[in-house]
Amino acid sequence: MLKHLFAPESVALIGASHKAGKVGHDILRNLVAGGFPGPIVPVNPSAGEVLGLPVCADLASYPETIDQAVLAVPKTMILEAARLALAKGARSVVAITSGFKESGEAGAVIEEELAAVCRHQGARLVGPNCLGLINTRHQYNCSFAGDMPLTGGIAVFSQSGALCSSMLDTAAERHLGISKMVSVGNKADINENDLLAYLADDDDTTVIVGYLENIVDGGEFIRTASRAAAKKPVILLKTGSTPVGRRAASSHTGVLTGADTAYTAAFQRSGIIRADSFESLFDYAAAFSMQPPPNGKRVLIISNAGGPGVMAADACEREGLLVAELPTNAAAPLRDRQAIPLREYNPVDVLGDAPPERYGQALAAAQANSEVDAILILLTPQTMTDGAGVMRAILSKLDGGKPILLCCMGRRDGLPDHAELVAAGLPEFSSPEQAVATLKAMYEYGRWRAQPPRRITRFPVNRRSAAHILARCRHNSICQLTEVKAKKVMSAYGLTVPEGRLIHSADEAVEYARLLGFPVVMKVASPDIAHKSQLGGIVLGLTSTRQIHDSFDSMMLRMRELQPQPRIDGVYVERMIEPGLELILGMNRDAQFGPMLMFGLGGVYVEALQDVSFHLAPLTQGEAERMLAATRSFSILRSRLGNREIDVRPVAEALQRLSQLAIDFPDIMELDINPLIVGEFGSAPVVADARITIACFEPRWDDQFNR
Amino acid sequence: MLKHLFAPESVALIGASHKAGKVGHDILRNLVAGGFPGPIVPVNPSAGEVLGLPVCADLASYPETIDQAVLAVPKTMILEAARLALAKGARSVVAITSGFKESGEAGAVIEEELAAVCRHQGARLVGPNCLGLINTRHQYNCSFAGDMPLTGGIAVFSQSGALCSSMLDTAAERHLGISKMVSVGNKADINENDLLAYLADDDDTTVIVGYLENIVDGGEFIRTASRAAAKKPVILLKTGSTPVGRRAASSHTGVLTGADTAYTAAFQRSGIIRADSFESLFDYAAAFSMQPPPNGKRVLIISNAGGPGVMAADACEREGLLVAELPTNAAAPLRDRQAIPLREYNPVDVLGDAPPERYGQALAAAQANSEVDAILILLTPQTMTDGAGVMRAILSKLDGGKPILLCCMGRRDGLPDHAELVAAGLPEFSSPEQAVATLKAMYEYGRWRAQPPRRITRFPVNRRSAAHILARCRHNSICQLTEVKAKKVMSAYGLTVPEGRLIHSADEAVEYARLLGFPVVMKVASPDIAHKSQLGGIVLGLTSTRQIHDSFDSMMLRMRELQPQPRIDGVYVERMIEPGLELILGMNRDAQFGPMLMFGLGGVYVEALQDVSFHLAPLTQGEAERMLAATRSFSILRSRLGNREIDVRPVAEALQRLSQLAIDFPDIMELDINPLIVGEFGSAPVVADARITIACFEPRWDDQFNR
Repeated sequence: MLKHLFAPESVALIGASHKAGKVGHDILRNLVAGGFPGPIVPVNPSAGEVLGLPVCADLASYPETIDQAVLAVPKTMILEAARLALAKGARSVVAITSGFKESGEAGAVIEEELAAVCRHQGARLVGPNCLGLINTRHQYNCSFAGDMPLTGGIAVFSQSGALCSSMLDTAAERHLGISKMVSVGNKADINENDLLAYLADDDDTTVIVGYLENIVDGGEFIRTASRAAAKKPVILLKTGSTPVGRRAASSHTGVLTGADTAYTAAFQRSGIIRADSFESLFDYAAAFSMQPPPNGKRVLIISNAGGPGVMAADACEREGLLVAELPTNAAAPLRDRQAIPLREYNPVDVLGDAPPERYGQALAAAQANSEVDAILILLTPQTMTDGAGVMRAILSKLDGGKPILLCCMGRRDGLPDHAELVAAGLPEFSSPEQAVATLKAMYEYGRWRAQPPRRITRFPVNRRSAAHILARCRHNSICQLTEVKAKKVMSAYGLTVPEGRLIHSADEAVEYARLLGFPVVMKVASPDIAHKSQLGGIVLGLTSTRQIHDSFDSMMLRMRELQPQPRIDGVYVERMIEPGLELILGMNRDAQFGPMLMFGLGGVYVEALQDVSFHLAPLTQGEAERMLAATRSFSILRSRLGNREIDVRPVAEALQRLSQLAIDFPDIMELDINPLIVGEFGSAPVVADARITIACFEPRWDDQFNR
Repeated sequence: MLKHLFAPESVALIGASHKAGKVGHDILRNLVAGGFPGPIVPVNPSAGEVLGLPVCADLASYPETIDQAVLAVPKTMILEAARLALAKGARSVVAITSGFKESGEAGAVIEEELAAVCRHQGARLVGPNCLGLINTRHQYNCSFAGDMPLTGGIAVFSQSGALCSSMLDTAAERHLGISKMVSVGNKADINENDLLAYLADDDDTTVIVGYLENIVDGGEFIRTASRAAAKKPVILLKTGSTPVGRRAASSHTGVLTGADTAYTAAFQRSGIIRADSFESLFDYAAAFSMQPPPNGKRVLIISNAGGPGVMAADACEREGLLVAELPTNAAAPLRDRQAIPLREYNPVDVLGDAPPERYGQALAAAQANSEVDAILILLTPQTMTDGAGVMRAILSKLDGGKPILLCCMGRRDGLPDHAELVAAGLPEFSSPEQAVATLKAMYEYGRWRAQPPRRITRFPVNRRSAAHILARCRHNSICQLTEVKAKKVMSAYGLTVPEGRLIHSADEAVEYARLLGFPVVMKVASPDIAHKSQLGGIVLGLTSTRQIHDSFDSMMLRMRELQPQPRIDGVYVERMIEPGLELILGMNRDAQFGPMLMFGLGGVYVEALQDVSFHLAPLTQGEAERMLAATRSFSILRSRLGNREIDVRPVAEALQRLSQLAIDFPDIMELDINPLIVGEFGSAPVVADARITIACFEPRWDDQFNR
């Protein structure tokens, strides 16, 4: 679809300038210097000649059609220029000019019209407010981002123009080759989703690298990004993740959801490799463009100095990788020879006086060793180090199997330059920590790609019953479902809820309790009371008819004393649940990415501890189980208690059922089960308390109470 | 004391070699090339001449005394060479040769003898197994670490020889000047403490940078390092912090103490700036050698590109610094001029077309603004960027007040080189994240230096009573004090313990409970039972004499059924404590750094959550209060409940009292209060359960039960 964009047959630069330093000049210079073989048509009313090309004073009078139009005119003239270009047959428009959406409302209006004009003619639009684009294989540098980059497999796009230039500079410095570059600017038409879809199928591109400040369409992003990531590594730097102050939220899940939580979940789901700094963006790009991801997390470190070896081992532990443990027989080839007086197996210390062969032998043995998934070579030049020789020995042994990363500490005298290392496919890092962080990213990506196809279980549920309850609440403008109603919805979706009934008098409560059997609990049911326990609306462990009578009366008394007077639906009498492990399960609907499930240890400190995990719906069983493992507290607890003490499957199933509920009812905005009580192994976890918030226009709880 | 070491009058190199590439040759070359003005005496039985110097065949026959001896002889000859040198008057010995402690037991024996021989003659020893030392101001390069570095204020030492070279290379690359360099090797005599003490008073040194793998004497380190850090920044990279598997520990505190916890606590106490990677070591060194620490955490970011500005702001949030919020009037000078069309106040966006003056004006305004503590300048070269002009404008405005850091993203064409930036005192970073991490380290150091002198409160306590209880336990070989005894010790140190008494029959329990008033709790007291509640040894909330009789009998029954039969001291009857916030306080004695206090939220999940803070004893009140604030859970809880709900002072005092107890009794190895129950504001927190482990030779709990 975007083929014409990247490989136009001809290009008109509207707003071409004679003056070096002007955008309309620099783009033309780059077009010419890049060697674009098609016609280049500079357009400017002043006519004349620039950079050896005749300037067309009036595009309308140009005898041929043009394929791509680049607009570098003042913003007041942009619509006219676009219309003119489209009339001449332009199938794509690159709008360089700035001063649109980014400058305020007036600019946004013109920008929308520009997009509409292009759309109307079936042309695609890049920008406005951008630096242009580059296609190295088409000799096409239609940008003022910099000189034509080296040709290679890395495609880059950026929402920040300035960073486009920085990215090209960094790639050049590291001698990394580029396939295509796009400065997406304000994304009035072409955005990250278009580019991911196109670049995924672009044979010239092996790795996609991007910088984003926002995402246009969350659902589409997940679909497109997943498809792209399944084909090639997609590395993104996303900024603006700073938590935004306090948000109004009616559930624990809402409170615990950070501003960046949804992006993290979306990237994880889509297999996106997320860089957390500009540096790591190209650390990752370099490694992913030269090496395969490892099949496991066992790293072998080869070093000619102890200190850097320890640093690398420390970094592996911190990143959750393993310093490969070699059984004696497997380590034998690494240490047997007289020539390699190794002190320990890993890091493999080839010692300060290591001659080239020692590095070569250690590398060959490590590549052959089945206990090793990835190899990190550390070279710390010392007086006796023959750096060039060592590098020759290493390069000659590379067998293209496992990922191998190199880190040189200190001087690079005598070492091959970046070009040579890139040609040999050996990525280089300036510190062990960077190399290990990159290996971690490669491992995670490899794991994502290796996962089986996602299979969502659809449980048989009583959807009609849930729909009925929710519809009634919506009809009555009740946004915040009471515990009674929330539990009915949960129960309809197959979650275990204690037996209970809404009653309206002490006598009725006694009668029902006798039926249920003691002990029972009583909870006030009111659409106006969100925090029952704080207001004395819950009594636990009632063991006699007398206690029920007394508690019912005093609870009613407490409720009547509240200001403003809450509406009381009745009192919910429920079988008392046996104590057990308390968990919190929740869902919060992200405006961008949709329903997001949450899991954590429950209880009073849940908000204080903030040790929870998130995952976007719909959930597979494996994803639900990984959510449990992803909280530090639950995984430590589980390993301490032993796996047989906690039955993970029914908890994972509860999460999947909530996922199904959230998918089925898009107007459920938030829900919490807090706590879900997990008893003995094999028993079903029980929903002890629950709340659901649906989209409607009733005033919020807090507002009501603050009236 | 080490003056002679760094500035000897003469030097003999024993083991001088004719052959380039040999250590004995390379050191001589460096000595000569460095321009050392004193006599250099190469010693080798083969005599002759090397590098223009006559070789002395036999040091004994050399007519003069020598001041420093450098030993580069095979290890079998090292003792003889040392004795010879000392006989010629050497006041310091630098032992280059390797193959000692690092190679095994036999080497360790020779190394000890070498140290003893030097000590006996009153000479100081560097090494063995090292690269030598450098003093740039004495034209003294007595090493094979590299060429003579630039002269400057940074002193470096390293326990890894290879990293010495890497450090010099990195410093040279960044154009940072060195005062002294020491490769400490095996630290048989001179170690980090000697160097810190000396370099603290060395006028040529403004910043100390070191790499350590272990520390020789923890107590001495804290004293020396604190004194040094009070005079100048001390930046250390300490590796080997990988957690060591599962440790045997008898307390929660023991379980929660990681392998690196004590080092972190010791560095924090001493004001050491801890680098977490080799890169950050020199990021920090560069900034600290050129800029003062900020007086606060408010950072102003000036950028000519949006993306990098957002990255820097994100990094500030992550590191706990503040993106300075400028009130409208304070921001006015930054945005008023027509020339600076700022979109937002901070990051201050000087826009992509920023001319030099705009940078200069923004910087000047930021320097003058009292709401700004530190300034980060980001320069992303774009087509219209006059990099050289911008840098001139920036350098001309520097007023030497607040710390100012520079980060250039992308190409450096036209920018001043490192030498010029170093001369101007402007440290440069290659990413916003690195710059911000460095600012964070500067902020922490400034805060440490600004803290008032540490004042330890000594509370009046009943030390004799505690000593008596502990002595009796020691005498009876009881390592693990029961709750009863532990609480008595705590009570003697002024902690509030519920009223209670050890009783021996149900009747006695009833009688005492009537005296105390109901409800009461009963807990079995046995030196053989560590986990009372798991074995049914605790009954809470007894409200009647009947309940006491029943519970006493059934508890005794349960205890008699245990295998092996535990010894029973009786049953502890205690007043029931009102519920409240549950905390854990503990102490674990580190072999290297002594008693380390711990604080966290208590309760069942304490080990699972691992959200605890540590601090070395003795504690000041401020340190105790910071321990509370340092746990995420407590600080969030406190801010949610409001400060008036939780009385922090008595909890801090309890920590200080535990600190005093741990200092007073060095044989207390571990102790826990779990939980300490905090009730209403103004009430004393109550020790609900406690345990103390003392050093003695009784078999451990677990061993007993596993017999």
